[in-house]
This record gives sequence, C-alpha cells and structure tokens, in this order.
Amino acid sequence: MPRPVDFWFDFASTYSYLSAMRIEAEAEKRGVLVNWRPFLLGPIFTAQGWNTSPFAIYPAKGRNMWRDMQRRADKYGLAFHRPDADQMAAFPSHSVLAGRCGLVALDEDWGKKFCRSVFEAQFAHAADIADPVTIGDLIDAAGGVSQTVLFSAHARGTKDMLRANVEEAKSLGIFGAPSFTVDGELFWGDDRLEDALDWAQR
Amino acid sequence: MPRPVDFWFDFASTYSYLSAMRIEAEAEKRGVLVNWRPFLLGPIFTAQGWNTSPFAIYPAKGRNMWRDMQRRADKYGLAFHRPDADQMAAFPSHSVLAGRCGLVALDEDWGKKFCRSVFEAQFAHAADIADPVTIGDLIDAAGGVSQTVLFSAHARGTKDMLRANVEEAKSLGIFGAPSFTVDGELFWGDDRLEDALDWAQR
Repeated sequence: MPRPVDFWFDFASTYSYLSAMRIEAEAEKRGVLVNWRPFLLGPIFTAQGWNTSPFAIYPAKGRNMWRDMQRRADKYGLAFHRPDADQMAAFPSHSVLAGRCGLVALDEDWGKKFCRSVFEAQFAHAADIADPVTIGDLIDAAGGVSQTVLFSAHARGTKDMLRANVEEAKSLGIFGAPSFTVDGELFWGDDRLEDALDWAQR
Repeated sequence: MPRPVDFWFDFASTYSYLSAMRIEAEAEKRGVLVNWRPFLLGPIFTAQGWNTSPFAIYPAKGRNMWRDMQRRADKYGLAFHRPDADQMAAFPSHSVLAGRCGLVALDEDWGKKFCRSVFEAQFAHAADIADPVTIGDLIDAAGGVSQTVLFSAHARGTKDMLRANVEEAKSLGIFGAPSFTVDGELFWGDDRLEDALDWAQR
C-alpha cells in the first residue's frame, strides 16, 4: 500500500504550477494519494533574509527560470504566458487570498480543480490572483459558491490554518515550492515530483 | 547533425559530480559531442553577494541537497560519501588547482577520465582535491604525467584560460553548476542534462 504524499505549494510559485497540473495523473499511475497543502513562501523567505522571491533578487536566476518554465511547459504540453515587463515587476503575486480560498476549497470535491484553475489563470492567462473578483469567478467556475468561500477564507480559523501550514512546512525543512513530503522525507522542486511519488511506493 | 553541448562545471560542485559521471553515456545515445568547460563558481557567487556556497549559507537548502544527492546517486548507481561534520565544515572545496589541471588535461585524450576521477575522489572517497598530492596521483592514474601537468597548471596561460572561462560563463548568464549551453541556450542543473542534450538535436 503506497503512502500518501503531501504536495506543498504556494499559488505564486511558478514551478508549483507545473506540479499542480501534473501531480494527479502521475500519482494515479502509481496508486498514490496526494494531500494538497497550500502554504506561503513569504515568511520562509523572510526568515532566510530575503524580502521577495530569489528569482527577483538574482536576475540571472530569474532569467533562467522564465526561460526554463517556457521549455518545461512546452515539454508537458501546458499553456504558459511569460509575463511582460509590467507583469514581471509585480512578480511574485500576493498569494494569501488564493491560499486561504484554496484551504477552504480543498475540503470540497472541486478543490483541486479550483487550485489548478488559479495556477492556470495566473501563469497561462496572466490574471491577477490577488484580485478577489478573479478568485471569486474561479471559485464559481470550479463548482463552488464564491460568496461563501470568500467569507470562509476570511474567518479566523482559515487564517490560522494557513499559518499552521507555514509552521508545519518550516518544521519539515521546507525552504521552497513545490515541495513533497512522504513520512518526513522531503523532495524539493517540480523535477523531483516523480521521485517523491516513487518513494511513496517503497 | 546535432550541435555540440558545452558542459560547465566546478570541481567543488556536488551536482556537477552527477553530470560528469552521466553525460558521456547520455550524449553518445544522441550522437552529441560534449565540450567539458571547467570554471569557478566562487567569483560568480561573490558577484551575487555570497561569500560561499548557498548550500552553506542556507542550512535548510544544504540539508536537502545532501539528502537529495544521496538519493540521486543511488538512482544513478553512483557511489556517494556524505561528508561527516568535519568534512562538511570544509565544504565547498577549493577547486582552483583541480580546475587548472582539468583545463590542461582536457587537451589530452585522458582528460575527461581525469575529471571524472577528481569528482569521484571527492564525492565517493572523501579525498581533499585541494591537495596537490591527491591531484598528482589522479593525473598519473588517468594516464598523464603529474609533474608536467602540475607545472602547466601554474603557467600564466592556464590561469588566464580558467579566468576567461569564468568570464564566458558569466556572459552566458551562468549562475550555478552544472550548466549546459547549446548555441547560447542555457540549461542549469543535473536535472536538465537530458533536456540540454535533446535541445542539441533539434
């Protein structure tokens, strides 16, 4: 019986988009269950002394990431919109609202669909995922009721749960996204997705 | 006719070990020629404001790297010795001497063999590659004459050539190792080795 895999992602994370679109098909091949765990990279980066994404701090690293994302999206057959200069200045997105709504949605059977749609809106269609109207439309399209979900997203319990996910991520040694954990074994990066799922089968 | 691939590596770089051991077999499958290009990460990290490897600066990133290296080495059937605490304190190695000898050796038909043996000495057998005696033994074992190579390694021309490689790496946008370039297209990381070789065939 394969063990479940926790899939840790931040809605603002480029490589998390690739994993969000790929993980269920790869997991199904292996009979592995995936728990989707939204968290926030912001507090983790702050603890490392960064005030934004390393892709924004280190230009060469950033340039490579955008080019690599385009190549990888092509390879996986995923749509990808490389941000223009204005959009690039707004990278990374504020993902707190999406993260909170993701937590609420993932209690419902349309939750994973909603999460994928948030990533697609951002990275394939250049939508602003910090905008409650955008998020509301995505909730409705995925099968939820936006008014209810947005209300629950702002409840104390939801905020606390997202904070608790950040703390749990830290305690697992997570320092980037996407990450995957299997009984405490940590895998970092979309390019380790298959390794993590294989590990769950051992 | 596939284009040649430049393989950029620093002898102190853990993931460069994996690529050094794998690249010729993967390239041969595809009929791709590989130019081995030793360079130094030190000056590139300094320009990013780091005084050592990011794996040493960011503990969570470092812990993950050593664990991931073990898993990847197992996957590829490569020997790997995880450094003990003392060895960890000496990470990353001083790789200037190895880099200079590598440059000299790569003009000879035993050059790639020598480069692989330096990586193995360090990451499979915990040898100190900053030690000229270690490097000399590896030169002799690979088929060279250590006295001649060590002499040439200290020649002005060799030192300049290693510096020129660093400058060329920078101008190509290289910020880490291993990296692979195909006509200006940059790929970073052992996990992009196959992508780079595939790209050379397009």
